[in-house]
Amino acid sequence: MQAAWERQNKLTKPQGSLGRLEELSIQLAGIMANPFPSLERKVVIVMAADHGVTREGVSAYPAEVTPQMVLNFLHGGAAINVLARQANARVVVVDMGVATEVEDPSGQLIRRRVGAGTANLAQGPAMTREQAEESIQSGIEIALAEISKGADIIGTGDMGIGNTTSSAAIACALMNQSAENIAGRGTGVDDDGLKRKLTVIARALDVNKPNTKDALDVLAKVGGFEIGGLAGVMLAAAAHRKPVVVDGFISTAAAMIAVSLAPATRDYMIAAHISQERGHQLMLEWLGLNPLFDLNLRLGEGTGAALAFHLIDASTRILREMATFDEACVSDKE
Amino acid sequence: MQAAWERQNKLTKPQGSLGRLEELSIQLAGIMANPFPSLERKVVIVMAADHGVTREGVSAYPAEVTPQMVLNFLHGGAAINVLARQANARVVVVDMGVATEVEDPSGQLIRRRVGAGTANLAQGPAMTREQAEESIQSGIEIALAEISKGADIIGTGDMGIGNTTSSAAIACALMNQSAENIAGRGTGVDDDGLKRKLTVIARALDVNKPNTKDALDVLAKVGGFEIGGLAGVMLAAAAHRKPVVVDGFISTAAAMIAVSLAPATRDYMIAAHISQERGHQLMLEWLGLNPLFDLNLRLGEGTGAALAFHLIDASTRILREMATFDEACVSDKE
Repeated sequence: MQAAWERQNKLTKPQGSLGRLEELSIQLAGIMANPFPSLERKVVIVMAADHGVTREGVSAYPAEVTPQMVLNFLHGGAAINVLARQANARVVVVDMGVATEVEDPSGQLIRRRVGAGTANLAQGPAMTREQAEESIQSGIEIALAEISKGADIIGTGDMGIGNTTSSAAIACALMNQSAENIAGRGTGVDDDGLKRKLTVIARALDVNKPNTKDALDVLAKVGGFEIGGLAGVMLAAAAHRKPVVVDGFISTAAAMIAVSLAPATRDYMIAAHISQERGHQLMLEWLGLNPLFDLNLRLGEGTGAALAFHLIDASTRILREMATFDEACVSDKE
Repeated sequence: MQAAWERQNKLTKPQGSLGRLEELSIQLAGIMANPFPSLERKVVIVMAADHGVTREGVSAYPAEVTPQMVLNFLHGGAAINVLARQANARVVVVDMGVATEVEDPSGQLIRRRVGAGTANLAQGPAMTREQAEESIQSGIEIALAEISKGADIIGTGDMGIGNTTSSAAIACALMNQSAENIAGRGTGVDDDGLKRKLTVIARALDVNKPNTKDALDVLAKVGGFEIGGLAGVMLAAAAHRKPVVVDGFISTAAAMIAVSLAPATRDYMIAAHISQERGHQLMLEWLGLNPLFDLNLRLGEGTGAALAFHLIDASTRILREMATFDEACVSDKE
């Protein structure tokens, strides 16, 4: 990090004039233990799962959309496919527990089904403690497989009708916040739907009483299989000195689980963006992460992470490719 | 624009969930009169010139840096070269009036020298009205040459030691603001330098009394050759239905000149970012432009515009490449 910082100060620009790009390049140098980090191979890991809580009417879309969108990912027609292609990133699609098995003649889908969707967290635990462990372990293994294939940077993405309810419940538990301050409209519920969602989250916390000192208990009581999986991805990336780009609301809930389990994980995270979903800002502040941009996104799938790859890559190219004052014979500050 | 909006609402995502990207794609459809806009060929036009006002000690860097950086642009070692390479954009470097002629064995430099730097605006007009006209006319011709070669989108960039002083003076004149609200530290002057800069801007406005109803008079009295050139680039882009990406503080001052001369130009502009320079936010608000990101940049050269190309391109790819609910057999909102 020191070497990267010194290099930035010799490049032909006023010191600090590339702002966040300079900071990013220094963070990446630290993460990768390399003063000239390079991000050749980019991957977005999109994890899908279903949520029993959809039975409470908390989403604007029917639960059948989860498997339909998994197929859309496999066929390359979703927003994440478009943005990952543009970023020259691979999309890895994982079934962490969609309610109905997805047919996949292509053989691209990674199946790590922890269950056929979670139980309804408004009436009891979403999953067992063993399932919570399994979801995290699966995320670790999937990330390790990508890292062993050469991934330099990993973006996180999610798909799961009902998962903003679960994510909001996780954030409420870990931050001791009320549902009103955290939950938003997700894919776009109306006023009645939002009211139901707030009631459901309050009930879930009351019924399950997650132990807020135990992130695994929080994940088991009110989480989701894809959220546990993404937390595992983040833990593995950090352990192997790879930057992990946290997408939006759901990925940030996963990041809160990961950081609760292993606080050092935070230093390996880059927050892509601030989402339109209500509590996202508070959650990022709790994590101590400063998002790169605000484009009013609220889609998930890793779309914000894929967009952020360009800025993150830019920061490393500046470090590697710009001329110094000496090399370019440019006069430095008077 | 109507067709692009209808298409966005059929794509496999909750309506509006891609936020600013959706808005951008609709704006681009309007600019290019095409519901499926495509941005294959990207150009950044970087205009350089010197400023007589540097004799007042308003910059942290010596004036000789302007020609040195022009050489750096031609050799590909500056930040704009790195970011344009990443964005697959061409960099067009123009000498609009550097104090000393730059040697260019490569023949890449476009020479449209209006003069050997402007006069000191603290003591009288920076240039004549004829020179102001010539600078705008040159910008128009350079943009037209790029458009005739197939440019689909143009980013603006600047280089000129002293040009934040000139840009701040333009903004103060057109917005009737005090120097304190607009001028910042530019490349990084210290407190004494900033005090001198504020005094110089106040004196320039007092000595020259620019006619604030006449943007050409404002440009002549307190402007710069590169600023007039960039205003011309924007006018030409708008006239030929090409989006023009406004970079930072200096480009925004040029945008204010262009919009004052032809208000419809505004609709063809995309503001890349909000710079660290003090008055930039007020200037963007005056223009009615909403910047895409805030990365604390304060370098100029078109670096913000080059970074923004990726997001702008992303918005058009979403429109062209995503599957609709029907195509992907995904259930729409209940």
